[in-house]
Amino acid sequence: MAAIKVHGLAFSTAAMRVLAVLHEKDLEFELVPVNMATGEHKKEPFLSLNMLSSKQHINALLPVYLQPFGQIPAFEDGDLKMFESRAITQYLAHTYKDRGTELLFAEPKKMAEMSVWQEVEAQKYDPVAAKLCFQLFYKRMLGMGEPDEALAEELQVSLGKVLDVYEARLAGSKYMSGDHFGLADLHHLPTVNCLMGTPAKAVFEARPNVSRWVADILARPAWAKVLAMQNSS
Amino acid sequence: MAAIKVHGLAFSTAAMRVLAVLHEKDLEFELVPVNMATGEHKKEPFLSLNMLSSKQHINALLPVYLQPFGQIPAFEDGDLKMFESRAITQYLAHTYKDRGTELLFAEPKKMAEMSVWQEVEAQKYDPVAAKLCFQLFYKRMLGMGEPDEALAEELQVSLGKVLDVYEARLAGSKYMSGDHFGLADLHHLPTVNCLMGTPAKAVFEARPNVSRWVADILARPAWAKVLAMQNSS
Ligand SMILES: N[C@@H](CCC(=O)N[C@@H](CS)C(=O)NCC(=O)O)C(=O)O
Ligand SMILES: N[C@@H](CCC(=O)N[C@@H](CS)C(=O)NCC(=O)O)C(=O)O
Repeated sequence: MAAIKVHGLAFSTAAMRVLAVLHEKDLEFELVPVNMATGEHKKEPFLSLNMLSSKQHINALLPVYLQPFGQIPAFEDGDLKMFESRAITQYLAHTYKDRGTELLFAEPKKMAEMSVWQEVEAQKYDPVAAKLCFQLFYKRMLGMGEPDEALAEELQVSLGKVLDVYEARLAGSKYMSGDHFGLADLHHLPTVNCLMGTPAKAVFEARPNVSRWVADILARPAWAKVLAMQNSS
Repeated sequence: MAAIKVHGLAFSTAAMRVLAVLHEKDLEFELVPVNMATGEHKKEPFLSLNMLSSKQHINALLPVYLQPFGQIPAFEDGDLKMFESRAITQYLAHTYKDRGTELLFAEPKKMAEMSVWQEVEAQKYDPVAAKLCFQLFYKRMLGMGEPDEALAEELQVSLGKVLDVYEARLAGSKYMSGDHFGLADLHHLPTVNCLMGTPAKAVFEARPNVSRWVADILARPAWAKVLAMQNSS
């Protein structure tokens, strides 16, 4: 019985954010599958996940004391219970600072700089990228029909505007986080990975520094381990 | 010349988040007014702010190196430049830990707990609250017409669902942050203050623990100092 438990599914972008940190930190943990299908407050988009992933071991509903909004992931480390993927990644990065990959910066100004880009990911990039992932990937995967092409087009234009800012940042910095890989980079991995398998790939590829960065972060061994969990679940 | 500069307006909810921390920490700073009216990439909603606030001293456009998305606030502390209000508040809370109000928790598990609710504010509450503030307050203030009543109604229902979770949290905890006031509480102040002057007030008042919390945080002397800046600008 691992002390660290992630309640979620290896297909969930928010859960993958946490799984990526756990692999970067080389921590032992247990992924506890969550049945989203019969959740009380929730109908979509996990309604069809059961049918789709017949190999998925479904356990139980996520109790409200683990995640009051009925979303995944939820997280336990001993008696500590948390939710919200970015709060969990911060906790892990701080608590297990001396294990595996260093995902923070010791120097306060470098840390301040990274935290700007963590906020940009959450406030500017993700609201667009998550909707685009849903339209171009999860919707079909979940048997919820075809993408809304007009909406997807609009979202790609918005994504391009955010990535213009990234292109400028990455012209002067190896990583979004700063001079080494960190949480601000890692938080992008699930949605970047998803979008690179869709037509929105072109929005990244039109920007050379963004393309270099995408190739770099997707090649991390810890990320390969996250993707492997999708196949083995 | 203060070392700390906030580029923004005392009417901006995102800028007020930073101003609240500066007053809690009793730090000297300069508020540098930003002319949003002639911004290149930006037309609305700051288009009419000039006409409206004739008492507002308008300086200059916000240069892209300060805020690449053309939004306020931007921030300087000596040679450190930052943007994104929640990144700035974190930086201030950590850097000026030993001044004024302690907005963090020394105990790692309490800090982890607060960071969950900081994420909830940013991910769940603010996307609804900010839109509702715009409909019910800023739209008229900026001479942009009447609220969209149907949208405002829908947003109030969503806000109620978020506040149901808050009500449960606050039944067992004095503050959203934990047993003392902290960043997770403070980040709510600008939008809570705005909505309490609109019909959406009822959504807060229907929930006794939420009401107690709202009264408590709005009564903070540092918050009164932020509001005073709106009148003197
Ligand atoms: N802000 C949350 C988002 C969690 C989230 O959106 N989870 C999705 C799966 S990626 C989910 O549970 N969706 C089901 C639903 O919202 O009903 C986090 O970062 O943990
Ligand atoms: N996530 C940003 C949001 C900044 C923001 O939305 N600022 C508003 C004023 S409250 C703004 O500049 N609006 C003008 C615009 O977006 O064009 C932060 O927290 O700093």
